[in-house]
Amino acid sequence: MCLFEKAHHGESGFSPQSQVLSPQSMLRVMLGPNSYGKSGIRLVKLRRREDRDDLMDLTVSVRFEGEFTPAHVAGENAEILPTDTMKNTVYALAKDHPLADIESFGLELARHFLVGNPQVSRVSVAIEEHPWERLTVRERPHAHAFRRAGEETRVAAVTRTREAATVEAGVEGLLLLKSRQSAFSGFRRDPYTTLKETRDRVLATSVTARWLYSGTDVAFSTVGRGVRQTLLETFADHDSESVQHTLYAMGQRVLERHAEVEEIRLSLPNKHHLSVDLSPFGLENRNEIFVATEEPFGLIEATVKRSP
Amino acid sequence: MCLFEKAHHGESGFSPQSQVLSPQSMLRVMLGPNSYGKSGIRLVKLRRREDRDDLMDLTVSVRFEGEFTPAHVAGENAEILPTDTMKNTVYALAKDHPLADIESFGLELARHFLVGNPQVSRVSVAIEEHPWERLTVRERPHAHAFRRAGEETRVAAVTRTREAATVEAGVEGLLLLKSRQSAFSGFRRDPYTTLKETRDRVLATSVTARWLYSGTDVAFSTVGRGVRQTLLETFADHDSESVQHTLYAMGQRVLERHAEVEEIRLSLPNKHHLSVDLSPFGLENRNEIFVATEEPFGLIEATVKRSP
Amino acid sequence: MCLFEKAHHGESGFSPQSQVLSPQSMLRVMLGPNSYGKSGIRLVKLRRREDRDDLMDLTVSVRFEGEFTPAHVAGENAEILPTDTMKNTVYALAKDHPLADIESFGLELARHFLVGNPQVSRVSVAIEEHPWERLTVRERPHAHAFRRAGEETRVAAVTRTREAATVEAGVEGLLLLKSRQSAFSGFRRDPYTTLKETRDRVLATSVTARWLYSGTDVAFSTVGRGVRQTLLETFADHDSESVQHTLYAMGQRVLERHAEVEEIRLSLPNKHHLSVDLSPFGLENRNEIFVATEEPFGLIEATVKRSP
Amino acid sequence: MCLFEKAHHGESGFSPQSQVLSPQSMLRVMLGPNSYGKSGIRLVKLRRREDRDDLMDLTVSVRFEGEFTPAHVAGENAEILPTDTMKNTVYALAKDHPLADIESFGLELARHFLVGNPQVSRVSVAIEEHPWERLTVRERPHAHAFRRAGEETRVAAVTRTREAATVEAGVEGLLLLKSRQSAFSGFRRDPYTTLKETRDRVLATSVTARWLYSGTDVAFSTVGRGVRQTLLETFADHDSESVQHTLYAMGQRVLERHAEVEEIRLSLPNKHHLSVDLSPFGLENRNEIFVATEEPFGLIEATVKRSP
Repeated sequence: MCLFEKAHHGESGFSPQSQVLSPQSMLRVMLGPNSYGKSGIRLVKLRRREDRDDLMDLTVSVRFEGEFTPAHVAGENAEILPTDTMKNTVYALAKDHPLADIESFGLELARHFLVGNPQVSRVSVAIEEHPWERLTVRERPHAHAFRRAGEETRVAAVTRTREAATVEAGVEGLLLLKSRQSAFSGFRRDPYTTLKETRDRVLATSVTARWLYSGTDVAFSTVGRGVRQTLLETFADHDSESVQHTLYAMGQRVLERHAEVEEIRLSLPNKHHLSVDLSPFGLENRNEIFVATEEPFGLIEATVKRSP
Repeated sequence: MCLFEKAHHGESGFSPQSQVLSPQSMLRVMLGPNSYGKSGIRLVKLRRREDRDDLMDLTVSVRFEGEFTPAHVAGENAEILPTDTMKNTVYALAKDHPLADIESFGLELARHFLVGNPQVSRVSVAIEEHPWERLTVRERPHAHAFRRAGEETRVAAVTRTREAATVEAGVEGLLLLKSRQSAFSGFRRDPYTTLKETRDRVLATSVTARWLYSGTDVAFSTVGRGVRQTLLETFADHDSESVQHTLYAMGQRVLERHAEVEEIRLSLPNKHHLSVDLSPFGLENRNEIFVATEEPFGLIEATVKRSP
Repeated sequence: MCLFEKAHHGESGFSPQSQVLSPQSMLRVMLGPNSYGKSGIRLVKLRRREDRDDLMDLTVSVRFEGEFTPAHVAGENAEILPTDTMKNTVYALAKDHPLADIESFGLELARHFLVGNPQVSRVSVAIEEHPWERLTVRERPHAHAFRRAGEETRVAAVTRTREAATVEAGVEGLLLLKSRQSAFSGFRRDPYTTLKETRDRVLATSVTARWLYSGTDVAFSTVGRGVRQTLLETFADHDSESVQHTLYAMGQRVLERHAEVEEIRLSLPNKHHLSVDLSPFGLENRNEIFVATEEPFGLIEATVKRSP
Repeated sequence: MCLFEKAHHGESGFSPQSQVLSPQSMLRVMLGPNSYGKSGIRLVKLRRREDRDDLMDLTVSVRFEGEFTPAHVAGENAEILPTDTMKNTVYALAKDHPLADIESFGLELARHFLVGNPQVSRVSVAIEEHPWERLTVRERPHAHAFRRAGEETRVAAVTRTREAATVEAGVEGLLLLKSRQSAFSGFRRDPYTTLKETRDRVLATSVTARWLYSGTDVAFSTVGRGVRQTLLETFADHDSESVQHTLYAMGQRVLERHAEVEEIRLSLPNKHHLSVDLSPFGLENRNEIFVATEEPFGLIEATVKRSP
C-alpha cells in the first residue's frame, strides 16, 4: 500500500484544507490533505449452492476524505464515522451483494458510504482478491474443497465523489520469467559502467499492473481476465531490447485490444538472474546456471495511455 | 528452517563430542552436537532444448557434521571446508546433473561431499523446489516463458553418512480449505471453555508434510506427485470430526497407497475462519460470511507410520 | 516503497510524454509518465579511525526521469544508463563522501547523475538508514562491536532537477504505545455502528513521518533528531481524543519548534489493542489484559503545513 | 517455530503410540508421536500503578502431548480440550499472575493444564517477550508512553510432565556486527574452493541462543540479563578465527559465569558483508565499503555444555 498516495492526490486539489492559529507561537499552521479509513478487512464469502460452494477471499480497505478539521484541530469527533463501522459495513453489505466481481462491490460500498455521510467528499475502496481453485479429485472439480492458487492477486480500486466514479483494476504479484528473446545492449556508458552487453539474458519480473476503465459499466471480470492474458502473451512473445521496451509493448497491446481501458500503469522490477562463472572449475556456463537475486533490483515504471 | 533440529539429531548420538578444560575457572565445559553449512543457495537451471527451455528453480542448503572440535575450541580451521565452497559446488555439480528430481541431486551432492571430506561423518542436503509453469499463449504452452505457480514448494531432505542414506520428501505452503464436511463437537470442557460445538465449519490449513522413503531407489517425481494428490483427495473427501481426525486419515491413506513411504509427518495449522455475527444489522449469517484470521492459530502435528 | 508515486508525480507535469502511432491498429497510444532506477542497493560503510570504527548501514534507491521515449517505443537504449551503473556509482561515491548525514549523500548522488546525464531531467534518491549502536562492554562503549538498534529507520528523499532540489526526511517503523490519556467518544453513528465509546483505551501506532525542509542548507542530523524527539514527546504528552487529534498535535508541534520544516506528512495506523472479556471466568478486566491485533487496522493520514 | 521439533522429542520415547488396523488394505498403520496446541496467542498486560503503568507484550504458544489416539483414529474428541480453551486460559491466568518473568508464567500455565487434564502427559509452553522501553520526555522516563525496542525477543520454553519440569530461556533476533578482530584463514581447500583467506573481515550475525537451566528455582530475569550480556561481551572481545571459534567462546563463557546454566545452544548465521571491488573506478577499498547480503548465508550451530 502506498502510504502517501493520498497526499499526492490531495495536492492535486481534492482535499479540504483549513487554517488555524497556533496560540503558543503565533506561527500559522494548517491542516493539509488528509484521510482516514480501515485497512486489512479480511472477508471470506461462501456462496452456498445446492450441490457446491463458491468461494471468494478478499482483503478490503476503505478510506474517507472530507471535512475533518474539527477532529484534527479540536478533538471533536462528531463527523468521524468509526473505522470499526466501516469494517461492519463491509461484512454486512457482503451478505446480500452477489460479489460477481470486486469492482461492483467496491462501487456499491463507496456509494453506500457517500449516501450516509454528507461530511465525506470522496470514498476510496481498494479490494484485493486472493485466488483459490477447486481441488481436482478423481479428475473432477470438487464441490467444496479448494487450494490457494498462488500469491498473485487481482485488485480493484474504486474512487467515488458526489460527481464521479472511477474504477481501476489490476494484478499484483504476477511473477514472470522468459529465458529467451531478451537482450540489453547499446546502452549509455559512463566511467562507472562495468555491465557487459548481452543479446541473451534471463528476464524475470513481478508484474504490478493497474489500468483505468473508461467508465463504470464494464464487464469487469471478462475484461480483467482479457487484460491479464494480453499482458502474459505480450511478455512471452516480445523481442525484448530492455524492460522498458517490453513494458511499453505490454501496455500498448492492452490499449489496442481492450477498448474499455483508458490507460495502464506498469511497474516491473527487474529481478536479476546472474549467470554463474563456472570457469574456475573448468566448466563452461552456456547460460544454463544462474543465481536468482533479490537485492538490488532494477525498477521500471511507466504509464501507457491513449492520445487525446 | 528448524534451527535446533540438528541439536536434537545430535542428542540421538550422531554427533561427536569433545571435552576441554576451561583454564580460568577450572569448570569443565565441552562441545556438544554441532554442525555448519550454507543455506539459501539460490539456483536456477535452464535446460536448453532445441525448441524449448525447461526451468528448475531451487533453494539449496548443505550441512556438515563431523569432527570440528579444533575449530571451535582452538580456532584451527584446517578441517573446515568453507561454506563458500559448498555454494560453488552446488552450482558446479548442477551444470552436469540432469536434475530430473531434487532427491537425486541431493543424494549426489551428499555423496560428493562425503567422498572428499574424511573429517565429515554426515552430510545433510535440503532442497526446496519453487514451481513455475509455462505460460499458455494462443492456447498452447509457450516454449520459454513461465509463470511462478504459487508459494507451495516441493522439498527434499537427504541425509547421508558413510553407512547409510535416507531420503525424505515433502510439500510446504500448500493452503487448503474445505467449506463442508468439517465438524468439531463432543470435546472436553473445563471452566475456561467457551467454544461452541459445531457440525459445520470452514476448515483451512497450510499443509506441511514430510515423508520418509524406504530406500533411495524410488521414482521420486512420480511417487512424490502421487503422495501430494493423495493428501489433497483425502483432505477433500474426509468427513472431518477434527483436524486430528483429518490429519490421521491423510497419513493413513498415503501409507496405504504408496508402498515406498515408510512414515509421514504432518503439521496442520488450523487457520481459523470465524463466522461474523451480523445479527446487530438484522441479518442472518448462515455460514456465508467469515473473517479469516492469522493469529492465534491451532497447530496439530503427528506422525503416521507403519507398524513394526 | 510506493510503486505508483512516480505516476502521481508525473501527473503534476514533470514527466515527458511522447506520442506514437501504433501501426497495426491505428489506435493512437502514447507513453505517459515514466521512470527507471535501481532499488535495494545495500551499502555498509566503515569509517576507520585510529581507536575505533564508525558504522553506517544504508539502503539506497536511485530513480531517473527524462527523455526515454526511444527506449520504450523503439527499443533504442542509447540514452539508458544501466541501473547497474547507478549501483556502482553509489558504492564509488560512498568511498570519499563523509556521509555525515544521508541527506547530503543523497544530494551529492543526485547532482552527480544530473551532471553526467543530459537526457535526465529529474533524479530522485531515497536512502534508508538502519540504526546500529555500540555494544556496552564493561560499562563502556565498544570500539568496533555493534548491535542493530531495532527496525525503526531514518529516511531521506532527495529530488533534484536542473532548476531546484528538494529534501525530505523521515522516520519509518517507529512503534509507539500509550496506555493512558487516550479516548475515542462522541463519534458519528449509523446503523452499522457497534463500537462502544471509551475514555480510556490503549493507543498504539507505527509512525511513518515525512517532512519537507525549506532548503538544502540544513543541519540535517541535528534537526532530524529534534523532529523525531518532538514527535515522541507530543505523542506521549497529548490528551488524545482520536488518532487524528494526536496526529495533528504532533505535526503542529514540529512546525512550531523546527523552523527548517515546511510541512510534515504523518501516517498513523491504529494498531488495535482489544480488551479481553474475562467475565465468563469470573474475572474483571480493568483495562489490564489486551489482545494485540494486526488486522484490520485503522489508517489515519494527514499533512500539516505552514499557512501561505 | 520448529514444526517437527516435537517429532524428534517424540522419537526419544516420550509420546504415546498406538496401533490400529486399516481395514481396507490390511496394511498396519499406526499413530506415531503427536501433539496439538495453540500458537500465536498475543497478550499485552498493563500493570496499573498509581503513578505509572508497566507493560508486558507476549506471544504465547501451548502444546499438549498425551493419549489422543481416539481423536486421530476414530474422530472421538472426548479427550481433546479445545485450543480455544488454551487461549482463554492464557488470558485468564495472566490477570492475576505477577508476570515478573516469562519463565514463571510458563511454569504456572503448564502446571495448570497438567492438573486439569489427566489425559495429558506433557505440556510445553513457549513464550516470546517483545521489548518495549519507556519514552524519555524532558529527560525523564515517561509514566505511560512506550517505544518498541527492536526485533530482539526474549524467549522461554517450559516443558512439564507429571515427573519433571525443564526451563529453557533464550534470545532471538539479536543482530550483532564486529568490524575488527575477525579472521578466516588456514581453512581446508578443494577444487571448488575460490574463497580468499582473510585476517580482517566484518563478522555479522543474528544470534539465536537457547540455554537450559539446571532447575526451576532460578532468578530468571536477573540471570537471563546476565547471560545475554555475557554473550554480547564475548562476541565483542573475542579474537575470532571463525564463527565456530566465537560461538564456542560465547557458550563457554556463559557456562563459566552462570552456574544456573546447564547447557547452551547457539545458532549463528554468517550474514556475509562482501567488500566491494572499487578498482575499476580507480579507488582502493581498504575494507571500508561493503555490500550486506541476505542470501546465501553460512549457518553455524552448536551446543556447549558441562562435562558429566
